[in-house]
Order: sequence, then C-alpha cells, then structure tokens
Amino acid sequence: MVKHRAEELAKGQREISVSEFFEKNRHLLGFDNPLRALSTTVKELVDNSLDACEEMKVLPEIKVEIRQLTETRFEINVLDNGPGVVREQIPKVFAKLLYGSKFGRNTQSRGQQGIGVSASVLYGQLTTGKAAKIISKIGKNKSAHYYELKIDINKNEPLILKDQVVDFALDHGTKVEIELEGKYQKGKQSVEEYLKQTAIANPHAEIIYFNPLKEKIVFKRAVDKLPKEPKAIKLHPHGVEIGMFLRMAHESKSRNLQGFFSNEFSRISSNLAKKICDKVKVDCKMEPKLLTHVQADALVKGIRETKIMAPPLDCLSPIGEKAIIEGLKKEIRADFYTAITRRPKVYRGFPFEIEVGLCFGGDLPSDDLIRLIRLANKVPLQYQQGACAITKSVVQTSWRNYGLSQSKGALPAGPVVLLVHIASVWVPFTSEAKEAIAHYPEIIRELKLALQDIGRKLGSYIRKTVKVKEQRERASLFEKYIPEVASSLAVLSGEKKNNIEEQLKKILKKSLKEILQEIPDGDKAEMKNESVKKLKKEKQVTLA
Amino acid sequence: MVKHRAEELAKGQREISVSEFFEKNRHLLGFDNPLRALSTTVKELVDNSLDACEEMKVLPEIKVEIRQLTETRFEINVLDNGPGVVREQIPKVFAKLLYGSKFGRNTQSRGQQGIGVSASVLYGQLTTGKAAKIISKIGKNKSAHYYELKIDINKNEPLILKDQVVDFALDHGTKVEIELEGKYQKGKQSVEEYLKQTAIANPHAEIIYFNPLKEKIVFKRAVDKLPKEPKAIKLHPHGVEIGMFLRMAHESKSRNLQGFFSNEFSRISSNLAKKICDKVKVDCKMEPKLLTHVQADALVKGIRETKIMAPPLDCLSPIGEKAIIEGLKKEIRADFYTAITRRPKVYRGFPFEIEVGLCFGGDLPSDDLIRLIRLANKVPLQYQQGACAITKSVVQTSWRNYGLSQSKGALPAGPVVLLVHIASVWVPFTSEAKEAIAHYPEIIRELKLALQDIGRKLGSYIRKTVKVKEQRERASLFEKYIPEVASSLAVLSGEKKNNIEEQLKKILKKSLKEILQEIPDGDKAEMKNESVKKLKKEKQVTLA
Repeated sequence: MVKHRAEELAKGQREISVSEFFEKNRHLLGFDNPLRALSTTVKELVDNSLDACEEMKVLPEIKVEIRQLTETRFEINVLDNGPGVVREQIPKVFAKLLYGSKFGRNTQSRGQQGIGVSASVLYGQLTTGKAAKIISKIGKNKSAHYYELKIDINKNEPLILKDQVVDFALDHGTKVEIELEGKYQKGKQSVEEYLKQTAIANPHAEIIYFNPLKEKIVFKRAVDKLPKEPKAIKLHPHGVEIGMFLRMAHESKSRNLQGFFSNEFSRISSNLAKKICDKVKVDCKMEPKLLTHVQADALVKGIRETKIMAPPLDCLSPIGEKAIIEGLKKEIRADFYTAITRRPKVYRGFPFEIEVGLCFGGDLPSDDLIRLIRLANKVPLQYQQGACAITKSVVQTSWRNYGLSQSKGALPAGPVVLLVHIASVWVPFTSEAKEAIAHYPEIIRELKLALQDIGRKLGSYIRKTVKVKEQRERASLFEKYIPEVASSLAVLSGEKKNNIEEQLKKILKKSLKEILQEIPDGDKAEMKNESVKKLKKEKQVTLA
Repeated sequence: MVKHRAEELAKGQREISVSEFFEKNRHLLGFDNPLRALSTTVKELVDNSLDACEEMKVLPEIKVEIRQLTETRFEINVLDNGPGVVREQIPKVFAKLLYGSKFGRNTQSRGQQGIGVSASVLYGQLTTGKAAKIISKIGKNKSAHYYELKIDINKNEPLILKDQVVDFALDHGTKVEIELEGKYQKGKQSVEEYLKQTAIANPHAEIIYFNPLKEKIVFKRAVDKLPKEPKAIKLHPHGVEIGMFLRMAHESKSRNLQGFFSNEFSRISSNLAKKICDKVKVDCKMEPKLLTHVQADALVKGIRETKIMAPPLDCLSPIGEKAIIEGLKKEIRADFYTAITRRPKVYRGFPFEIEVGLCFGGDLPSDDLIRLIRLANKVPLQYQQGACAITKSVVQTSWRNYGLSQSKGALPAGPVVLLVHIASVWVPFTSEAKEAIAHYPEIIRELKLALQDIGRKLGSYIRKTVKVKEQRERASLFEKYIPEVASSLAVLSGEKKNNIEEQLKKILKKSLKEILQEIPDGDKAEMKNESVKKLKKEKQVTLA
C-alpha cells in the first residue's frame, strides 16, 4: 500500500495546552528579558491587588518587596489588604492560565484576561523550578490558608505542593511570593517607574516599596476617597456580530426574543426589541434557541440600522482632569499644566473614554523627544511603545501646528510630558502582556481628537508666552538705550537729562504691565514666574 | 453568618476556553479591522499551503480568489497542490485553536502555533455565522473529503455540519473557503502587497490571484528548485531553563541521565553528558524521573558553564544573498542592489539567522522615509511595524554614517528599500497574529550588526557615486568654458582656436573616463546608467 505524505504528517498532529503554548511564547506575556520579567511580575501582582481592594471598597495598602537572592535570582513579595481569595479557588486563580472572574464581565478593571498572575507563577517555575507561595485570608474570624503551587504544564491545571492553615497579621488580604530569574535596574522601564506612574494614576493607593538595595520608597496616599466605582454593563447591541449573536441566542434562557434582547443587551427596551423584530419580520415571541441563520442575519442588520442610545456612562471610571493635573504636578516640575477628559465613545459595543494630560516647560529638557506616559485603566504601559495606538496617534498628530518641532514619523520634540489614558470595560491590548493598545479605528479617531484638543491648548500657551517673551526682550533693549536717548533729548530740548530718563522709564513700565497682562488664563495655565503669578492672583484660575 | 466579599467574588470565577478568549481578543490574531481581516486570512491560508507543499517536496501552485458578496462581505478561496490532510484530522486542524503538528517541532516553518487557520475560521464564523468549507485529498486513488466546519466556542472543539465524499480535480491538495466581513483596498497593507512580497521571498512558488475586481494577477515561478529543506533539531542545551529541564527529565523515557541528555538535546554526546554530571556530582546513571530540584539546578548550572558546540546549521533555510538580490530586482527598479546573509546565532537555544537586502536610487523617492520590508521565515510582515525588533534595530542604527538623513527616533529617509529577514526554528512573535518580532536582546544585537554591514556597503556606494557625480559636474562646467578658454589661448599663442578646442576636449574626455572607472564594483553594485554598464561589462560582477 502506498503511504501518503499526509498520513505521515498526521502522526505529528496534537493538541497544545495553553500553558505549553505560553511556556514557549513567554514574551507574549511580557517575559522576553530578565529586566522586564521583574517589572511584569510586580505589575501583575500590584494590578490584582488594586482591583481586589477596589472591589471590596477599601483604600489599598500595598507592600511590595524585591529581595535579591543571587546575581540573577530574585524573590518578589506583594501583600495587600484586599478581600482575599476563598480557599478552594486559590489553586486555580494562581496556577491555571485562562481562569478568573474578570473575563467578559464588562467592567472596567485592571485585570481582564485571567492570565496575568498565573503567567508570573509559570515564569517563576520555568526559570527557578520553584513553587509560588500564597497566603490568603477572607475575614477576621476565618483562618488564613497557605499554599505552595506549581502549574502542570501539559494539563494547564494547578499542582498543590502544600496546603496549610497559618497565622496572618491582617483581617483580610493576600500575600504572594514568587521566585524568578530577573535583573534589577533603575530607569525608564524599572519597577520604580511603574510604581511611580501607578501612584500618579491612583492617588487613593498607598504603596510601600522595598527595592533590592533595601531602600524603602513610600508612595503616599494623596486622596482619601476611592474613585467612582465602575458599574458592570451588558453588551451594547451595536457591538454585536452575527456569530456571537447566534451563540448568545442559542445559549439564552429567555423564553422569547423580546426577553432575550432586553436581558442580554444594554439600551434595548422590550418595546424597542419588538420594533426591531417587526421591522425585519421575525416573530418577537419566538424562542431564541430556534433562531435560524437567516433570521439572525436579518436581526443584526435591523439592530445596525436602528438608532440606539449610547451605552450608560457609569461603567467607566476615568481619572479626571483635576486629578491628572494634580498627579502631574506632584511628580513633574513644569510651567504649564492642562488636561482633558473626553466624553465616552463606543468601539465594538464597548464604551471607552480618552483622557490626555500635558505639562510644558520648567525643568523639562527642550532638545529631547517629548516623554509619553501611556495608561490603560489606570495601569502604566511601560513597554511596546512603538506598537501602541496611542503612540501612533501622537506621531500622526501635526505638533508643528501647536508650536513643537517634529520630524516625519517621530514623536514631537520639546519640553513636554504627555499623559494619555484609555479607560474601557474591555481594553483591546495587542498581546497578553497588556502593554500596547490595538489599532481599532474608533479608538485612534478619538485619541487624535483628544490630542488635537490638548495641542490647541499648548499652542495657544506657547504663542502667547513666546509673544510676551519677545516683547519683554524688546522692552529691555529699549531700557538700555534710555540714558542715550535721554542725553540727546536733553541737548535738543534743554530739559534736564534725569527728568527725561524718569519719564521714559515710566512709559516703559506702563507698557510692560500691559504686555504681562496678555498672558493666557482661559486655559488653566499656571506660570512659574513669580511676577506673573502675582499678577494672576487677582483673577483666580480654576482647574476644571 | 457573615458573608465575606471574597465569597461573593468566588461565584464569578470560571475557566475561559481558548476560543472564547480569542473571540473577544480577535485583534491578537490579526483581526482588528476589516481591511486587515482580509489579508490576515489570505496570509494564514497561503502560509499553510506553502508549508504543506514544501513538506511534500512539491513546487507550490497556489490559487487565491477573493469574491465580493456584498459591500462588506467577502469569500476567500485558497487552493493548493500540497499533500492534503487525512480525513480524521480535518475537523481539528481547521476548527480547533491550539492544534497542529508544527508547535514545538523545532523546524523552520511558516506556521508554528497551531492557531492561524482556525483563527480565520473563527473570525468568519463570528462575523457571518457561516461555516468554513474544506476539501482535501491525499492521493490519486483516495477520495476527496468535503467538510463544513464551525467551532464550538465554549469547548474549543470542532462542530461538523457536513461530511461528504466529493470530486476534486487534483491528485492531492487542499481547498479552503471562508466567508467573512472585510474590506478590500489596494496599497501598502493589501492582499496584493502581501502576495508580491511573498513572491519575492519565495521565487519557487507560482501564485495565481483573482482579486475582487476580477483581475487576474500571476506571480510567476522564477526558480524551478525547492529551497533547501530545513532539518528538525533537538533543543540546544544552552537554551534550557531549570523548569523545563525538570519537566523534560520527569517525562523522559530514558533509563539514565546520560541517555536523557543525548536523546533530548542536540550537541551533547554520551561522553559530554558524563562530564557534566561528574562535574556537578550527580550520578549519570540515575533515572531522570527521580531528579530532585537541587540536582536539576546543579545540572543546569553545569550545562551553562560548559562550552557546547553551536546547534547544527542545517535546521535553517535562508533565502540567500543571490535570491534576495534577484527578488528585489524583479520587483523594484533601483541603481544599486546588495544583500547579506549572516551566520546563524542562537537565542534561548533556538538557532536563527538574519539576512538583509537593500536597493538604492533609481525610481525610488528621495524625500520619503525608506521603505522597510520585514520577513520572518519567508513570510512578509505587513502590520505592527512599530512593535517589531526589526524596526527598532533600523531606527537605532546611525544611518547618517552611511549617507542617509535620519531624524531622532525615526526611520532614515532616502531612496532606499530595505529588506530584513529572520529565519528561525522558533520565531518569537509579539502576538499570535505573527506580525512583529519580540525584542530579544540576542536578536536585536544580530540585527544591528547585519544593518551596519549593509550600511557600510551603502555608504561606500553613496560616497563613491556622489564623488563621481560631483566630478562629472565639474567636468561639464569646464566643458562649457572650453570655447572661451580656446579663444583666449588662440589670441595668446597664435594657434588656431579649433585646434585648441579639440585638444582641450580630448583631455577632458580622458579624465572623464578615469572618473567613471572609479565606480565601486567590489560590493555587488549594479549601475542603471547605460554608459556605466558598458564600462563595467569587462570586469564581470559576480552576485554573492
């Protein structure tokens, strides 16, 4: 019998476990080098802690400690005062990829994929062979549980090495310890920088950090109030596609289409559901389970052609213009601060909201490219800047119009820190490492509009201050010539030179005052220059 | 009883199927907009076809057809003459994510993850609700099987809607038909451009393409020989980490450590295995299954401290310098072509090889940024340029040293097409969409060296031709003055003006010839200018 090539090839076909996939593709999870491995792990743990505390409505108190064990080996330890994890769930939450409570929940949160923490456990196990150690306690009169966990790579299931009851100092909270290969370094992509940016975006959190040099760094709580709690929402009908619609209908427990529409989607009343069904001639009393492909196709078309109210806005929790400006002021010395929070928009049925903050001048270097801080659901994005829709939008904005220099295809240059935040119930990241925003056209459009808004504010500030500066220089030049002019006038007019000099100085002072009053105040500008500050005190500037 | 927050949260915890994960994260797979959806689908299908044909050692003949059904709906149809897929495997190969024969095989191939085709089927199903249609036949006397397949999203398992025996025109091959929402457009990120670049990198393939405008485009086969077949290799010991090492040991069927080493790793002889074991005082006759954590740690350290031969090079199949230059010449009109294939290197135990090609001048626009063609295992990367280690390396190379202008943080500008290819048994992509290379330091280092090599060639060409051009301009200026000078000399010397003019012209021609001979020929340069070509014919230039 002839042996066909396809038959030989068939022997190699097999199922790949998701753990095995990520063991080999660890860079997808943010572990492509030892430096990044350290900051990715801290990030995953701290993000989880912040989410947990906010879910319990408790002000976050987070302790991060990194101990260096050998040249390349570190132990990361994160403790929080969150609600804890119930005993039975601990193994799967920490040692199974694609397991969690946040996926598809349609709530703005830092975690969303059910991968992050387990990925850090996987990486630790891969590079050191060691198990992760977890302690969690869910309430005052409950015992604290201690687990040592590894991942069974072939099955993507937790391996429990130890399971004990232990003492724990807090009433509730979680402590995670992971040993891994890493590299510690200060600078732009360091753990310090991640925590600093996290503190800017989360002024309600207190974070205490011990670095491998045993230095203690405290990021103090600046606001004693939790941010507005984001509400979970249902899928907006304008984001649905026929494949998902059919699946939702066939899995639905509603008895008829009308109920299905109002139960599963936001902004569709029973009335509106009937209208849509009538329009495309599908019986609104039919069982959703029985929906055919043709009917579903018609209904999705019907939905797209119907004007439906935008999704409710309480599902989003932006940082806010005032908080952005305060955050920037706390960390960066500049002359001018401004911020914009735009109204929420929708992509694929998911609401999202863009915020931009900017500061200019002061101690910032004039010759370098601007510094870009990217945030998604209040989490700093430190890697993959080039891959990010935020970067693309900044590069494609014409900053020359707003007074900055800019080369083709590059970030603008100038003394500017630009902060861009996207808040969404579902942030589309370009990879599981969650470091860059995917290039959805709706998001890029909205980013560009926000950048143009802030660009205009910057441009108007630069134009006006540059004008003032030029006029001031002209005035000072004039001042230099006063004695000369006064001598000549004295000779010509017979008046005393001193008198003429005094008069000329008076005139100059008067026009200088006028020049100084031309400083912009309509756009939340704050000037560092003391004399200007005094002048402006009378017309108190309100910050958003 | 007090209800703890953790207990409420526990109710939401659940397992997420990998299909569900990608249904929501479709942009990870390359489906973030309708334009890209179309080219991603064609890419996944054509890449699979090319791999299949090469596995069967048959010259690929691939037919791609895109039919537009409505404004936003398309049907993509790809037919190949590969080995086909055996009947029982068809459902899983096409309708189950993370299933395939290429994952972890350590062979250079276009597919490597077991995701691509099923992802296209998933996207089609999601946006149109339609099943994918597959016909496959594995040999002359075998029947062709027709399947209609969907994916059961909750289980990540195939749903078989139809399973029939049908007629098929070829002896062996596969035909896949997917209906999806998309957008057709010509240009930089189009299907045409993907196929054109594929033809450059795969001159042994014949690709016939019918676009939605019903235009037929043929990319002719230019080489009648299959590329060198890449051999599968075992993991190189220098790429192993303790977690994976432990797992491999515990799963090993070898009876002792010595056998385990030589069976599972490349470049470790039985002798060398004993040496390593002895050095770290682990008994080389012990059963690998019984290896403890401490022993494994010692062995991995021992491996790292041992000099081990580089992995065998026959596992890689580069395009080759000659083929790159011919590919570029076929598609791009320029004055100067050059290419470099570097020697293979290793990252994390995986061999990889960098190739760079460049063309300069001719019809290429001088004012724009250079055009960068990125390739991985002979597959063009059209998206996520900003995220790619290739782009990063190009941006960080100082092209001003080589005669191009370049702004900080940007690609250089000038009349250049730059082609960069990475071939590897495991290309580390930044996402499942396989559009950008992850930033592994070893890869970036090698990329930069390759770019500097080609940069020097470019620089020397520019310097020399610019010099020639300047001298030629000086000569032509001189020519203009000949009549004037001749008149003056005639007056001074009493010689006839005509004679003097002729003499002067002769001198000029002689020195012009010398100037033209200064054109570089050591570096594979080819000049468009006809006169130059003639001059150079004598010293025949060899390519590579």
